Amino acid sequence: MSTLEFLKGHGTGNDFVILPDTGVDVDLTPELVRGLADRHRGIGGDGVIRIATTGALVDAGVIDEAPEGVADDDWFMDYRNADGSLAEMCGNGVRVFGHVLHDLGLLEGNHAVIGTRAGRRELTVHAVAGSTADVSVDMGAPVVLGESSATLAGETYHGTGVDMGNPHLACVVPGLSPEKLATLPVGLLPEWDPAFFPAGVNLELVTAPVDGVVHMRVHERGVGETLSCGTGTVAAAVAALRSTGEETGQVRVRIPGGEVQVTVSSESSELRGPSQLLFRGTVETADLPVLS
Amino acid sequence: MSTLEFLKGHGTGNDFVILPDTGVDVDLTPELVRGLADRHRGIGGDGVIRIATTGALVDAGVIDEAPEGVADDDWFMDYRNADGSLAEMCGNGVRVFGHVLHDLGLLEGNHAVIGTRAGRRELTVHAVAGSTADVSVDMGAPVVLGESSATLAGETYHGTGVDMGNPHLACVVPGLSPEKLATLPVGLLPEWDPAFFPAGVNLELVTAPVDGVVHMRVHERGVGETLSCGTGTVAAAVAALRSTGEETGQVRVRIPGGEVQVTVSSESSELRGPSQLLFRGTVETADLPVLS
Repeated sequence: MSTLEFLKGHGTGNDFVILPDTGVDVDLTPELVRGLADRHRGIGGDGVIRIATTGALVDAGVIDEAPEGVADDDWFMDYRNADGSLAEMCGNGVRVFGHVLHDLGLLEGNHAVIGTRAGRRELTVHAVAGSTADVSVDMGAPVVLGESSATLAGETYHGTGVDMGNPHLACVVPGLSPEKLATLPVGLLPEWDPAFFPAGVNLELVTAPVDGVVHMRVHERGVGETLSCGTGTVAAAVAALRSTGEETGQVRVRIPGGEVQVTVSSESSELRGPSQLLFRGTVETADLPVLS
Repeated sequence: MSTLEFLKGHGTGNDFVILPDTGVDVDLTPELVRGLADRHRGIGGDGVIRIATTGALVDAGVIDEAPEGVADDDWFMDYRNADGSLAEMCGNGVRVFGHVLHDLGLLEGNHAVIGTRAGRRELTVHAVAGSTADVSVDMGAPVVLGESSATLAGETYHGTGVDMGNPHLACVVPGLSPEKLATLPVGLLPEWDPAFFPAGVNLELVTAPVDGVVHMRVHERGVGETLSCGTGTVAAAVAALRSTGEETGQVRVRIPGGEVQVTVSSESSELRGPSQLLFRGTVETADLPVLS
């Protein structure tokens, strides 16, 4: 039996169990991750994030090697989905990760290079007020795949395919009001073009930009509707900029879980938004359900 | 802004946020309850339970008067559903409530009379081991309403209507194995006889008793399938006993969230089973989402 210290936080409604484990002492099996993430019998979260240095994770065999441009003593976001599987990156999770690093005094200054399974990332903690922080992270370069369409509940939506490491179809819908958007059945499974998206797609429905602001709802592949999706907000910003003839610029994206700011440049993108730490505690691994 | 101390626990997978609030200082509005119970941006739970004495809650105007047989200094389970509404009783919640009273040193001995909105109840903490307790509570007399049936995914199930303060149809299905039960689409909305159950029904599908054990899955009215339902396990025990020609006796009921033991006597019933306290912490009310 072992005792785990944890923090619980969320970024625009994507919520995470954070485990500071600088010694890499925790055997973070899929079963343990599922137990921690269980919303009734565990702590509950969309994902579990271990905090350790890149070098310590390499030494423990959790990752094979440091990503390019990441030093052994840089922090690494060891992210797991709630189902126990590995994930490369999570744009909302990394903000909470940066916030916890700052909160625990593990950041020098307010800026850090971190390792992720998607490679090197840079994050900045701009401000902390009470339990809330304003954090930005670079999200890499969005790759525009071209135009495609999807059908949801009999309605066809045209949009821009964007590869953010995962596939998105971001559809800016002319004339769609935020009020109307709120009524659409985004939880239903969309039909997409399997030739265009052979591995499935995350679908974003987006209002046309007004004063640099769009509203968005997202159907995440394999999950359903979620309160927020970091990569999806970047894809939505890319599509919104293109709808006004731009390839770069800044867009504020309002999702059901809050608001983030996306900056698209010629070579990268940045996601900036809130992180909130709600509570912290300890839990005995033996108390968690074993979910095989 | 105020700081709330809480504990988080579950009874066979029904989970609760427990607020010790002996001074009745917390304005437990529906908005605050929804924020605390929110699974992404709050603590998360099926319900929120305040701990205070009956007299203190009367003085504060939270309840009108002490239930019959309950003294002013008896503890009262001030239970709220996750949607902010009041609930009369919760057979799984009351075990966690008793466990927390014991954990906080608020019980004299291991037995207590408590007040609930369904009236006087008695609970006993039989044993505590680590974070788990074995707790029993009297659930009042089940009222057998007669025979009825319901249809789920084209299959019709015959069973016994049982009023436990809320309406149940408990169907012991001859020849149903636990393995087959596990495959039934209990999440779908059943069709019931509206003349028999004008206010809707909680549907239990139950295997025939073998050595005093039944397996059960439950569709809770207005919720869908849940891991457990305290009143439903009592209804299932009543139906299981009747299927063998008995009106009283003891049945162990295995639900997806664990196992409880139900004793049905001529004038009452008792639910006994586990409670687990997982973690505790503090949360700022200002950090919780405002969910109107």
